[in-house]
Amino acid sequence: DQTKLPESELFLYLDSRDSIYEAIKKLRVRGAPAIGIAAAYGMYVCLARQCYPSLEAMAHDFSALKHYFASSRPTAVNLFWALQRMQKRFDAELAMEGASQSSMLKALLEESSAIFAEDQAMSIAIGEHGLTLFDKDKHWGVMTHCNAGGLATSGYGTALAPLYLGHEQGYSFSIYANETRPLLQGSRLTAYELAKGGLDVTILCDNMASLVMKEGKIDAVIVGADRIAANGDTANKIGTSGLAILAKHYGIPFYVAAPSSTFDLDTKHGSDIEIEQRDGEEVVNGFGRRTGPIGVNVYNPAFDVTDAALITAIITEKGIIERPTTEKVAKHLLG
Amino acid sequence: DQTKLPESELFLYLDSRDSIYEAIKKLRVRGAPAIGIAAAYGMYVCLARQCYPSLEAMAHDFSALKHYFASSRPTAVNLFWALQRMQKRFDAELAMEGASQSSMLKALLEESSAIFAEDQAMSIAIGEHGLTLFDKDKHWGVMTHCNAGGLATSGYGTALAPLYLGHEQGYSFSIYANETRPLLQGSRLTAYELAKGGLDVTILCDNMASLVMKEGKIDAVIVGADRIAANGDTANKIGTSGLAILAKHYGIPFYVAAPSSTFDLDTKHGSDIEIEQRDGEEVVNGFGRRTGPIGVNVYNPAFDVTDAALITAIITEKGIIERPTTEKVAKHLLG
Repeated sequence: DQTKLPESELFLYLDSRDSIYEAIKKLRVRGAPAIGIAAAYGMYVCLARQCYPSLEAMAHDFSALKHYFASSRPTAVNLFWALQRMQKRFDAELAMEGASQSSMLKALLEESSAIFAEDQAMSIAIGEHGLTLFDKDKHWGVMTHCNAGGLATSGYGTALAPLYLGHEQGYSFSIYANETRPLLQGSRLTAYELAKGGLDVTILCDNMASLVMKEGKIDAVIVGADRIAANGDTANKIGTSGLAILAKHYGIPFYVAAPSSTFDLDTKHGSDIEIEQRDGEEVVNGFGRRTGPIGVNVYNPAFDVTDAALITAIITEKGIIERPTTEKVAKHLLG
Repeated sequence: DQTKLPESELFLYLDSRDSIYEAIKKLRVRGAPAIGIAAAYGMYVCLARQCYPSLEAMAHDFSALKHYFASSRPTAVNLFWALQRMQKRFDAELAMEGASQSSMLKALLEESSAIFAEDQAMSIAIGEHGLTLFDKDKHWGVMTHCNAGGLATSGYGTALAPLYLGHEQGYSFSIYANETRPLLQGSRLTAYELAKGGLDVTILCDNMASLVMKEGKIDAVIVGADRIAANGDTANKIGTSGLAILAKHYGIPFYVAAPSSTFDLDTKHGSDIEIEQRDGEEVVNGFGRRTGPIGVNVYNPAFDVTDAALITAIITEKGIIERPTTEKVAKHLLG
């Protein structure tokens, strides 16, 4: 349950449709890949607990369950993608001669496990490609923003994957995690998982990034992505674009790490990406105390867009796009 | 009592040495000019409550009280300056023929009131000079960081002085106040006092500055200063240097407003300014909830230094230093 971190480490045993739905909806499971995996296993678990009079009854229940889970987070693309994969597998199995309730369940468990395993492999591939940007002989100061680590995926994460993998292979990192106002994913989640993984991590407020860079403590910035436009412009957690500008000012490389499924070729430029606006109470009344006057205006955008021109390289499971442009992105995704 | 803002508005009636000391020490009164004024009036109030057998006894008590108040905030230069002014006035009065306990008290009250009045005049002068940088015919989006307003001084403040004065004179501003992690002076104090003054103010997290600038909402950034080196490099609340770099990236003017007493000509460059490091608990356990793992490393510098090359102009009560350099600063302070 990620909403309880870092105060307590609580593992949820979920085996009912309502508890799974609630866990996704309330961000107890968060991070696009992790949500997809939870929903896929959720389909299997819920169907396995029933005894259906016919495969038609099972198919009916499958469909209802899929729509129910899909309504938990209407904007998380990975959730629909995972549920759609489960649907395809279910339909394929249903069309097989001799299909039975148990053969259907076996197929769904296999598909869930495949989604899980592919996500882990994707993390490792991003980690391996990302590591080519770091020397093993040097100590690296690395800054990250928000949480693009293991908690958001099933494995090593995206932005944090090169760091976890490198740590295992004897690379040396000092990691600076910006706390990421207003919901503090950096201090609550990133610092928690890196420290637990035995990596050297230091929390700082978002506004301290400039000083830490000026002091020479940062050799690279690496962040995740929520959506990447066809030209390489990247939407990520609010604060990311400012870090990219600071990194450019101080001559520090700025990397984005994300699975290739994060690219949205229908979005030509970053300016076409809509920025989600959230409730101002998250800012002025978020963590146990009111910190702004009641009724004051608050601006609370959840994301910003970093111009491709500010990005040194995008790392995917397929490799690295240096100085991304529309042509390079297209070539990378086809390759 | 500024520690209670914005949850409650509490005015303290202080007439004992211990209550005045505690109010300064615990930041119930904060902001260098406001502290100086509180200590000066504090000297008067404490001495006025006693009946001394002789002027020597009064002088002895004066000296003890001065040392006591001076120990409340060992780094606040304005505090020593104000207490020193009171001492000089006391000594001058003591040397007068016919000095009596009541003439001494009258002199001390006059001196306290003079410090208060000069500070108010300084705010207005900064406001007037600052306003020359704004057009009356245009609507201005202005960003500020931390609190350099009325709560930190006796009047209109420093960075906020042009905005208060302009508002009275019919200028039109939309003000964006960064919340200023970790102690949230922007959301707790700046937003509070601007809204109370009837100005249009919006709180945003520090990491949203880049997006708000990119959206074209900001026409100027204006901040205060804690110390300005001989070459114009400026120490101010953590986060300020990052804003200056973002402003430069987006082509937005960046102004520093401070009394001329903020210059420290013994400090040649910003790199000579020591950065105060504060307790990491302020970051991970500050506002009612633990937001970082227990025992994790935290970096919590209270200030950063903005290079003079990033500053469009410094505004003092004497006028404006455009594109500050060592030569221009020296000329300004002599003029």
